[in-house]
Amino acid sequence: MRASEILEAVPTVTGADRVSTAVRLMAGARLPGLIVVDGQGRPSAVLPGTQVLRLTVPRAHQEDPALARTIDEVHADLFWQELGERTVSECLPERRDRMATVGLDATLLEAAALMARLRSPLLAVVDGRGRLMGGVTLEGLLAALARADPSG
Amino acid sequence: MRASEILEAVPTVTGADRVSTAVRLMAGARLPGLIVVDGQGRPSAVLPGTQVLRLTVPRAHQEDPALARTIDEVHADLFWQELGERTVSECLPERRDRMATVGLDATLLEAAALMARLRSPLLAVVDGRGRLMGGVTLEGLLAALARADPSG
Repeated sequence: MRASEILEAVPTVTGADRVSTAVRLMAGARLPGLIVVDGQGRPSAVLPGTQVLRLTVPRAHQEDPALARTIDEVHADLFWQELGERTVSECLPERRDRMATVGLDATLLEAAALMARLRSPLLAVVDGRGRLMGGVTLEGLLAALARADPSG
Repeated sequence: MRASEILEAVPTVTGADRVSTAVRLMAGARLPGLIVVDGQGRPSAVLPGTQVLRLTVPRAHQEDPALARTIDEVHADLFWQELGERTVSECLPERRDRMATVGLDATLLEAAALMARLRSPLLAVVDGRGRLMGGVTLEGLLAALARADPSG
């Protein structure tokens, strides 16, 4: 099996979208991550769900988790309201990992090795020109592996 | 809100369980990760889904993703059959990250900051004695944050 056979249509955001929109989109689609695309429909970032969540966590708390202990419960429930109109591109980390992208002809083993290495439960699948064709999720990959396994 | 209010009952494995069992359990429960417990019901590892997947990827491919390109498609579909009877404890990485564990009284902000920092979409929730009480998933946390948000 190839990535082309297990890719799913996934909603995407651009860097200009609000972080709050991105989080709602991911949660609403029950996706394990989110793909950010540029104006040409090419992935510019593939964010694991935890790193989409990270966009919502105030920077001081990202750097010092113990600080969160000092915030009372009511405010701790509402931290992501402070996001306001901040956009995805404003919140992306400066240091970027290798992008979690595979070609349409990637095998299941290639996809699994990349997911494991980059700790990304979502891969962007691109055509020869680097345009986004869809996504492969960890859940979709595991289901495909189970189907391929004759011992069931 | 506190972790105690959003924790879910989650299936667990022990180090003696087979890796193939662990993968099927996680996929079947549609969990974003898996908690490994010791004989006293205490978490000994909290594995993000991608790191459960990693247990199934042959070591040579973990270290050199380009190697996967050299394996033909039929064999690339079946790599995880080579696992045989390997157990979870045999496949756990030697270097362990800080465990993704919170107390029952952790706030949503604490849980979010820890998930983001450890890149773990699953947290183990423990009582004062370190015994596993349940799990908090990224999806569950986002749903709780959305409920807490009066701007909806």
